[in-house]
Amino acid sequence: MPKNIVVIPGDGIGKEITDAAVDVLKKIDKKYGIDLTFSFYDAGGTAYDKFGVPLPDDTLNAAKAADAVLFGAVGGDKWDNVEPQLRPERAILGLRKGLGLYANLRPVQTMDELIDYSPLRPDIVRGTDVLIVRELIGGIYFGDKCEREEYNGTIRAWDLENYSIPEVERIVELAMQAALKRKGSVTSVDKSNVLATSRLWRKTAAKVAEKYPEVKLDHMYVDNCAMQLAIKPTRFDVIVTGNLFGDILSDEAAVLGGSIGLMPSASIGEKTSLYEPIHGSAPDIAGKGIANPLGTILSAALLLRYSLDASAAADDIESAVKKTLSDGYRTADLFSAGSKKVDTAGMTEAVLANIK
Amino acid sequence: MPKNIVVIPGDGIGKEITDAAVDVLKKIDKKYGIDLTFSFYDAGGTAYDKFGVPLPDDTLNAAKAADAVLFGAVGGDKWDNVEPQLRPERAILGLRKGLGLYANLRPVQTMDELIDYSPLRPDIVRGTDVLIVRELIGGIYFGDKCEREEYNGTIRAWDLENYSIPEVERIVELAMQAALKRKGSVTSVDKSNVLATSRLWRKTAAKVAEKYPEVKLDHMYVDNCAMQLAIKPTRFDVIVTGNLFGDILSDEAAVLGGSIGLMPSASIGEKTSLYEPIHGSAPDIAGKGIANPLGTILSAALLLRYSLDASAAADDIESAVKKTLSDGYRTADLFSAGSKKVDTAGMTEAVLANIK
Ligand SMILES: CC(C)[C@H](C(=O)O)[C@@H](O)C(=O)O
Ligand SMILES: CC(C)[C@H](C(=O)O)[C@@H](O)C(=O)O
Repeated sequence: MPKNIVVIPGDGIGKEITDAAVDVLKKIDKKYGIDLTFSFYDAGGTAYDKFGVPLPDDTLNAAKAADAVLFGAVGGDKWDNVEPQLRPERAILGLRKGLGLYANLRPVQTMDELIDYSPLRPDIVRGTDVLIVRELIGGIYFGDKCEREEYNGTIRAWDLENYSIPEVERIVELAMQAALKRKGSVTSVDKSNVLATSRLWRKTAAKVAEKYPEVKLDHMYVDNCAMQLAIKPTRFDVIVTGNLFGDILSDEAAVLGGSIGLMPSASIGEKTSLYEPIHGSAPDIAGKGIANPLGTILSAALLLRYSLDASAAADDIESAVKKTLSDGYRTADLFSAGSKKVDTAGMTEAVLANIK
Repeated sequence: MPKNIVVIPGDGIGKEITDAAVDVLKKIDKKYGIDLTFSFYDAGGTAYDKFGVPLPDDTLNAAKAADAVLFGAVGGDKWDNVEPQLRPERAILGLRKGLGLYANLRPVQTMDELIDYSPLRPDIVRGTDVLIVRELIGGIYFGDKCEREEYNGTIRAWDLENYSIPEVERIVELAMQAALKRKGSVTSVDKSNVLATSRLWRKTAAKVAEKYPEVKLDHMYVDNCAMQLAIKPTRFDVIVTGNLFGDILSDEAAVLGGSIGLMPSASIGEKTSLYEPIHGSAPDIAGKGIANPLGTILSAALLLRYSLDASAAADDIESAVKKTLSDGYRTADLFSAGSKKVDTAGMTEAVLANIK
């Protein structure tokens, strides 16, 4: 049975980087006989320009029917004045909700090859290996909201932060399972000294953890976590947290590795999952063929591992990327004297050459 | 007219560090003839143990009547099982609300003397000089909340994030005024691609900025800000943001300077303002006389500058602290080979000796 991969390039550099990842997947497919087919759909500002909406039904339906989705990036200044509900970002929020992508996984590792690119001192960052598990379809992102209302004689806006016990259970379960395959420790991050939602979160996380005596659970306030990620990132194994805290902490953590151009992510759904690099659509360099494709290529590796159960193929891509970086190949974002400067195509070829 | 300073040591090392700062204020008072008087009040776990509440009326009333409040720190494992409404942290939330402390100011500078203590690489962090202006009595901290309710056949908890136009105006005004005395740039941080409250925040900030053509305003998403603080902290002058984002970002920023033991803060009210170090009550070292008093001493400098309009006296303290650090004095938290190890008293004496 062929595996149908829906590719959604999106805006800006989205096409260049997903094309690169598809090339890598095609070579992997030849080697491992996975039987991949690819189909391409619009989303984001590009879709808005063509169809008047950032997430056409066609795209959402194709994604729902797919074995996995490979996503590029959306957004750009060009659509800054589009009304909130039609902005490019709505495509990604719509896909998350539409596919039920409840867990966003962001692995952050510092490769020794890139340690000098990290803003943190090497002695602090060396050995960092964190997996951030962010709840992705709940919390304040999808709670009720009000843009404008009269209240106490003035105008206010509001958003409802909220979590239910089953929502917390589901994401903490996933974090526990992930920890079992890693170093066996989960840090649940909340703000339970202030928020009622966090107090429910903390109690529920503790309860779920009782079923996993092999896993060590600790709780941390989000402000402290933002601090610890900067001063002692090696203390973490798995971090599990809500949608908003996860958004902030995973972007902070993303820079530890030295380059956000390299960072992949997986958004796990009940049925279909979605994979995307964490960086944006970089409209300033779009079309120039110089974007770093490695974040998307590494996202394709996660796709193979999580959606197609093709671990060996995933490992193969990850080793090829590592080798390419040790060999000194660098796109412009990471170039420094002494390394081999390549464009998107050059980097992709170098990776392909390392898949024997 | 004597100026009445209410000192609230709180828990843990609170007494040691506020005593140190009071000693410095007394010497400054002699030199500048400000005419300070001091009175001492309980709060936090200490107050809970004595009176059954973390913020006795006596303490709040004294603070309200004071010219300024110097606060130590509250909290400790000892009170972990006290019910939420009576926890030590409620003292600080109660003082914020009770005194109307609407703006928390957190200056973060990297001193060259301490650059090697920063987790960031010196080339990234050198020259950092940020002022974080955090709204302190609104937002999700003080919105309606619900610990537990049935909803859609399950149990959930919720908290209401909310801001009114006047609340945003007030804090952005303060940030603009601060920028006028600094480098003239304000970054307003929100999550307006997702939250209605942030969209009102952003629009209101832009409107306030129209009155300050000399100030450059830019807007940044909170996730991006968490990233930029780690990769390019020198790009910021004043950051203004809501209560929750400010809590997270100011703790992240606090580590840039190399030591949270040094970081002061000012919480500005309509009438009375409160000054405290940003670090916690460190129960593990309480009573040993080894805590770093500099965060509190520098908070006392802010007290002189903002509440008593005694800038020369404030500058004097800040120079004395700088000189003490350049001379190599270090408390245990910052000690490294080659520097002069001192305890709380020793550090305080060294600072006093530099106030001629
Ligand atoms: C684009 C935006 C809505 C999105 C989010 O906040 O989730 C992004 O920051 C992310 O983390 O994927
Ligand atoms: C103790 C806690 C309630 C407080 C807060 O979240 O505001 C603290 O983190 C702070 O920043 O002063």
